[in-house]
Amino acid sequence: MMNWNEIEDYAKHWIREAGERIRDSFQTKLVVESKSNPDDLVTNMDKETEQFFIEKIHETFPSHQILGEEGLGDKLQSLKGITWIIDPIDGTMNFVHQQRNFAISVAVYEDGVGQIGLIYDVVHDELYHARKGQGAYLNSTKIEPLGDVPLEKAIVAINATWVTENRRIDPKILIPIVNAVRGTRSYGSAALELAYLVTGRIDVYITMRLSPWDFAAGVVLLNEVGGVITTLEGEPLNFLKENSIFVARPNLHKEIFTKFLKRK
Amino acid sequence: MMNWNEIEDYAKHWIREAGERIRDSFQTKLVVESKSNPDDLVTNMDKETEQFFIEKIHETFPSHQILGEEGLGDKLQSLKGITWIIDPIDGTMNFVHQQRNFAISVAVYEDGVGQIGLIYDVVHDELYHARKGQGAYLNSTKIEPLGDVPLEKAIVAINATWVTENRRIDPKILIPIVNAVRGTRSYGSAALELAYLVTGRIDVYITMRLSPWDFAAGVVLLNEVGGVITTLEGEPLNFLKENSIFVARPNLHKEIFTKFLKRK
Repeated sequence: MMNWNEIEDYAKHWIREAGERIRDSFQTKLVVESKSNPDDLVTNMDKETEQFFIEKIHETFPSHQILGEEGLGDKLQSLKGITWIIDPIDGTMNFVHQQRNFAISVAVYEDGVGQIGLIYDVVHDELYHARKGQGAYLNSTKIEPLGDVPLEKAIVAINATWVTENRRIDPKILIPIVNAVRGTRSYGSAALELAYLVTGRIDVYITMRLSPWDFAAGVVLLNEVGGVITTLEGEPLNFLKENSIFVARPNLHKEIFTKFLKRK
Repeated sequence: MMNWNEIEDYAKHWIREAGERIRDSFQTKLVVESKSNPDDLVTNMDKETEQFFIEKIHETFPSHQILGEEGLGDKLQSLKGITWIIDPIDGTMNFVHQQRNFAISVAVYEDGVGQIGLIYDVVHDELYHARKGQGAYLNSTKIEPLGDVPLEKAIVAINATWVTENRRIDPKILIPIVNAVRGTRSYGSAALELAYLVTGRIDVYITMRLSPWDFAAGVVLLNEVGGVITTLEGEPLNFLKENSIFVARPNLHKEIFTKFLKRK
């Protein structure tokens, strides 16, 4: 029998310690490099933070496997057993340009089922956390389940890129959604945008390309408040590859999917 | 001779006091109404905050005139003399939906020239402030002048609305800008977006319809760090009506205007 309380305590302790290291790093010079393309940034702090988690987890839970954005963990073939899914700095571009609007995202899954989800807004010292079946919290405050919001009063997080010519989707599919709602926003950190959805600060979030480490913790939190997350085609997410993401309050997921996204 | 130190001290004191009242209001129920359209929101706190400033200013500086978003101040024909330009809550939609990402914006102009600019991010207790010719500050830290950033590394604040069919601009004009830069963001508060530009967290900000109370304080701050603000046609802003807004670091204002916005 897994001691989930113990795992959760360690995870929370480590995420706060990692956040403190990142806050301290603001005083020192950052090393910024590009990955797959010039806008896909990574810094020494992304790598050092992932390494920090890997060392802690290997030492404390040697049988657990680790999937991390920077690839310093294990090469995963499946989610069998206990898997930590980690984005050391989600929103690296914001981290580099703004020193805010980024987060650490840590999830623990058992045989593919999310058991623990933590999103830590480092600068604001806000920890969004959930244990499967036990509700979602922002620091020590319980987050209420997501109620209905009418489409015309909804705030949608969507990047302007996806409603202009791009390689992932015909913008004509998404433009009518932008025009139907109250307003749009874009914060540039998937983990924070999921945390904003969990807390009802936004009502819908659409993006075209997220990896498991971007959404694994968010999914655990969303499940606790009744948020619905699928691909843009309405399919379940695949935790071993990139996905498009369509997440919303339950009534808005249904209405937007039926009216705008469903293949006729 | 005007005692600008005294006016600045009062302005800073009042903006912090108003912020404290807004933070306290989070505990009580908000009254939300619509103005010109269903998405143009106003709350009792917008009105109460504007009234708070009007009472303080009238009592302390009876000869000063006041231009406020909620129209509780004076009907202005010109900016002759001393004018306070106030947005009690800039980003009311965020205030209602998120209880964050909004600001109080207060400027003091003399004969149309900005002398004092204050933008207060209430939730984060961050006061961006400037006096003409004396530099810009975030709380007690001096903000550095804006250096050059290459177009392909720029972050542009632009709402997805303006790159979809809308009543203000042909989206085809703006789409190439979105495609040329590193990334886009949208925060939903003009005052905060201007403050983000002043501090270099974003590099360009484009929006189609702002009123003087949205940008008056931002202009004073921008002048102190070398930011360039015009309409999308490259014209100076008119402080007695609505304007389109194109603001950027100096090199990016020139390059984007020449490449994308200038009428051929």
